[in-house]
Amino acid sequence: MEAGRAIEDHERWTELGQQLRVDAVRAAAAAGSGHPTSSMSAADLMAVLLDRHLRYDFDEPDNPCNDHLVFSKGHASPLLYALYRAAGAISDDELLSFRKLGSRLEGHPTPRLPWVDVATGSLGQGLPVGVGLAITGRYLDRLPYRVWVLCGDSELAEGSMWEAFEQASFAQLDNLTAILDVNRLGQTRETRHGWDTGAYAERLRAFGWHAIEIDGHDVSAVEKAYEEAVATSGRPTAIVARTVKGKGVRAVENVNGTHGKPLDDPEAAIQELGGMRDLTVRVAKPSESRIPHRFSSAGPLELPRYQVGDKVATRKAYGEALRALGAARGEVVALDGEVSNSTYSELFAKAHPERYFEMYIAEQQMVAAAVGMQARGWTPFVSTFAAFLTRAYDFIRMAAVSRANLRLAGSHAGVSIGEDGPSQMGLEDLAALRAVHGSVVLHPCDANQTAELVARMADQAGISYLRTLRGATSVLYEPGTRMPVGGSKVLRSSDSDQVTIVAVGVTVHEALLAADRLAEQGVPARVIDCYSVKPIDRITLREAADAIGRIVTVEDHWPEGGLGDAVLDALADARPGPRVVKLAVSGMPGSGKPAELLHQAGIDADAITDAALSLAQAP
Amino acid sequence: MEAGRAIEDHERWTELGQQLRVDAVRAAAAAGSGHPTSSMSAADLMAVLLDRHLRYDFDEPDNPCNDHLVFSKGHASPLLYALYRAAGAISDDELLSFRKLGSRLEGHPTPRLPWVDVATGSLGQGLPVGVGLAITGRYLDRLPYRVWVLCGDSELAEGSMWEAFEQASFAQLDNLTAILDVNRLGQTRETRHGWDTGAYAERLRAFGWHAIEIDGHDVSAVEKAYEEAVATSGRPTAIVARTVKGKGVRAVENVNGTHGKPLDDPEAAIQELGGMRDLTVRVAKPSESRIPHRFSSAGPLELPRYQVGDKVATRKAYGEALRALGAARGEVVALDGEVSNSTYSELFAKAHPERYFEMYIAEQQMVAAAVGMQARGWTPFVSTFAAFLTRAYDFIRMAAVSRANLRLAGSHAGVSIGEDGPSQMGLEDLAALRAVHGSVVLHPCDANQTAELVARMADQAGISYLRTLRGATSVLYEPGTRMPVGGSKVLRSSDSDQVTIVAVGVTVHEALLAADRLAEQGVPARVIDCYSVKPIDRITLREAADAIGRIVTVEDHWPEGGLGDAVLDALADARPGPRVVKLAVSGMPGSGKPAELLHQAGIDADAITDAALSLAQAP
Repeated sequence: MEAGRAIEDHERWTELGQQLRVDAVRAAAAAGSGHPTSSMSAADLMAVLLDRHLRYDFDEPDNPCNDHLVFSKGHASPLLYALYRAAGAISDDELLSFRKLGSRLEGHPTPRLPWVDVATGSLGQGLPVGVGLAITGRYLDRLPYRVWVLCGDSELAEGSMWEAFEQASFAQLDNLTAILDVNRLGQTRETRHGWDTGAYAERLRAFGWHAIEIDGHDVSAVEKAYEEAVATSGRPTAIVARTVKGKGVRAVENVNGTHGKPLDDPEAAIQELGGMRDLTVRVAKPSESRIPHRFSSAGPLELPRYQVGDKVATRKAYGEALRALGAARGEVVALDGEVSNSTYSELFAKAHPERYFEMYIAEQQMVAAAVGMQARGWTPFVSTFAAFLTRAYDFIRMAAVSRANLRLAGSHAGVSIGEDGPSQMGLEDLAALRAVHGSVVLHPCDANQTAELVARMADQAGISYLRTLRGATSVLYEPGTRMPVGGSKVLRSSDSDQVTIVAVGVTVHEALLAADRLAEQGVPARVIDCYSVKPIDRITLREAADAIGRIVTVEDHWPEGGLGDAVLDALADARPGPRVVKLAVSGMPGSGKPAELLHQAGIDADAITDAALSLAQAP
Repeated sequence: MEAGRAIEDHERWTELGQQLRVDAVRAAAAAGSGHPTSSMSAADLMAVLLDRHLRYDFDEPDNPCNDHLVFSKGHASPLLYALYRAAGAISDDELLSFRKLGSRLEGHPTPRLPWVDVATGSLGQGLPVGVGLAITGRYLDRLPYRVWVLCGDSELAEGSMWEAFEQASFAQLDNLTAILDVNRLGQTRETRHGWDTGAYAERLRAFGWHAIEIDGHDVSAVEKAYEEAVATSGRPTAIVARTVKGKGVRAVENVNGTHGKPLDDPEAAIQELGGMRDLTVRVAKPSESRIPHRFSSAGPLELPRYQVGDKVATRKAYGEALRALGAARGEVVALDGEVSNSTYSELFAKAHPERYFEMYIAEQQMVAAAVGMQARGWTPFVSTFAAFLTRAYDFIRMAAVSRANLRLAGSHAGVSIGEDGPSQMGLEDLAALRAVHGSVVLHPCDANQTAELVARMADQAGISYLRTLRGATSVLYEPGTRMPVGGSKVLRSSDSDQVTIVAVGVTVHEALLAADRLAEQGVPARVIDCYSVKPIDRITLREAADAIGRIVTVEDHWPEGGLGDAVLDALADARPGPRVVKLAVSGMPGSGKPAELLHQAGIDADAITDAALSLAQAP
């Protein structure tokens, strides 16, 4: 009996593997592009997983007990879609819509498909996100689902993979299995380690993982490895599978130069693979039906309140508001890159330790973990220095492709940080974050404004970014002042205004000083606090442009892509077009006191006064 | 005698270590900020290095045989500057100018100091740059200098460090020594591995390094470890040194919460450390005086020439031009992230294999290696998909702080790549690269223009970026047409123009189509190919604004921070202000044919024609 079943299993898995190969070849042939050979190497690994170990209800992708399958090697999308066909989730017709306009079967997987948690295709991101999902399963949802991540061998060169390996073993993620498809060949050549699976296993063991080396085409060995992974506790498992790229078709099997190309003769290949098949796998559903853990809420949101005139750093208000948000809403979680006493996320950590995740100095893994958490419905806030979010820019870009709801907070913006110097100054963050699809970019100037915006971010879809200041700034707004996303605040205004100053963050305070001086000189100035840099308050800006027509923008940021460009964009069709002068940081700053550096950069009250005077007096 | 000398050495190193600590405490006290405790942990490690193993001519920082000392833990700058004082390179007065406005002793080291190769301070970057320097020493300069990199333990969480460890052993860099200052404490807490030096050593050995675990305050052990590092061949060495943060001053020794703060009582601390000292080390100069290897040149530059009307992908022209440049100039080198057959840097690789560096899929290490190479006077060109340069954005940002001369080429820009989908589409690269200090951003539309710009980049200071297209585009310009940085090309123009279309890259071709259709409808349009996005050709744009006043910008990029914003910025003070309509990719693209996606994004000839007509007909 046992032996009979084993033979049956073996035959079914082998057949299923061939079906997956055939379908990958067919999909790529229909598309005229795609990665069949990278799919063929992993077909047996995925066949056994689908048939035996994956617990997934394809009819109910939102079932919280579903396992998660992430293709970190997203270019193997034909294999993923072939799996969906084998599971009966998509039709053969849909499979053949691969890569066509309008098809949800894109060149690389995205969550337009309900069974895909996150977009992949930028290598080295799927495993870090998988770590985030596994953290969520263990520490937040507290459900027994497993996370399976199919990784390529080429992507093991990405440092982000090693951030993930380190984080996963540290967090004892025995619910996570990485399946390494070691097919030896990258896009142009052999990988550094070729088929030396021992090189990978040794590294992984040193990183605290359980590693199993197998032949990835021996379906019995594959099955045993999954059993062993499931049975391993206290640490994650990596199945290091030696495979053959293009396996099953002699014309492409283990041949360099076949990456990312449909087969020359798909018909012959399908023939060689034994022809088209129509196996359907009844994928096992989760054995349990449980609801995710939820943290209790302490009552309605009570944001911190700051007295007008007090001096408070917006980064501190961020931490205090986040702590309050965490108390009111159990789904809010926080992650930080080992600077929580600088970003003040430590206040959240102290109040809600079960919902704070220390990601150490690994910004890529930090953002990826948050992407995993939001995929499971949590509301993550991610913080580090604004400058260091640039480390995770590719992950933020991809989070947008993932349609992720992600909140980012970057502290220590601009030259106003002072002595630490340019390596620590976020000076490109507004440009970088504006250029993320569907993003919201916020830069408050005072503590009450910050607190309001933190609360808004919790309900903001897509990627929102809050930029905070290192130094204390005067509280300008009464507690509870409404601060809608897309809004602005007119701080000075009169019918006789001769110039408008549009400022954000620390420069709002400089702008107010400048307005005082300008008033003394008989040049009344409107001052707009443009705290929502994206979306920007076109209406208020347009009113100023129409009424006054002379605008100075001032920001603690490089001149490109930040506030000034956003204002110009908002006024591109104003008639008559206003005259705009942009003040921004144009020279490379060094160390110095904040006020000295603001002055040197030409974005302090002196510079604003001069620019506004010149502009007001221009013909 | 031997024993006597050993005792003498031991005493001198111990004294020197104390001097370095005292000076770090003094510098931070004078500045009122900085990282004395992170300096104190590594003082003994650096004392022995300076006195015994570093080969460096402080009077001649450009001596090609000098060793290279990189502080990957850049926040330990007080220690670095204390070393410079001990070496007699800076005065005590200058030491105390630390972090003051105008001082070249910035909060984190920058190449404003002649002995600093690259800026550090964003953790996890110094070692990858050190790998670049070591590659340069071994494979390019072919000189026996050594590269010493002081690393923190906290930064070992950064994936970029593991990209570097992998690359270094693969390249057999026995001229590289990483000194790991395992002081256990990060900014807010203990690191993941605390004082478990074995955890690091095991990982490093698995990555192919020779690892030596020592007590970092036992100067004899430190000395022996350096000897062993120098004697080790065929692989790099890591000295994993257990150290104590704040070593030598009880108030801060091994105390959490002392990161990044001057000592409360510096006077008492200096007392406890034995008071101020004035030891001067005669740092050994390089024992050899040799000139670096140079590759021969095959003659004057002969750029590829393309026939007008032919269809050639600009990425291919990049590869062909780079190959030609390499033939003409021996100092040109190329690096790629395992996509050289996509970026066409493979053409350079085949022609000049000794000057091509395959960095596999490790974009951070790739950019860092190039930064290291340019620090030694080489002219590196770095290529990958534009989308994947975002992975190295923090490294590009820091390269600007390093005043690096770096050439980046990003292929596969925009939705025009087609079926691969958004993960592979560079859609934020213009914004991100514009927002890099002093950068040049170029986006050619044809092959001859590309070739000209590649040649320009070779002599361009700072960071220059070339954006290329996947698909073939028609050759518009005659071979040899001058394409200055900061220029543009007016492709259609007449005295009766009613609208101006400013395009770049693939949209230039769409703009020309649109102009034909507009002409048919009696609406002559000026077409400007704005290939130099930064610096932008203000004069030509201003002429169009003054003469016509109605401008459509069109780019295969998100709406923020790219061509449209650059044009608006250039025209911010035009009188009367022109009316500008920006066309860009606003929705998230999927897969599809290039033409379908250009149409869907609203940046093809149809969209341009419509926008131009509306604008021309507007009151």
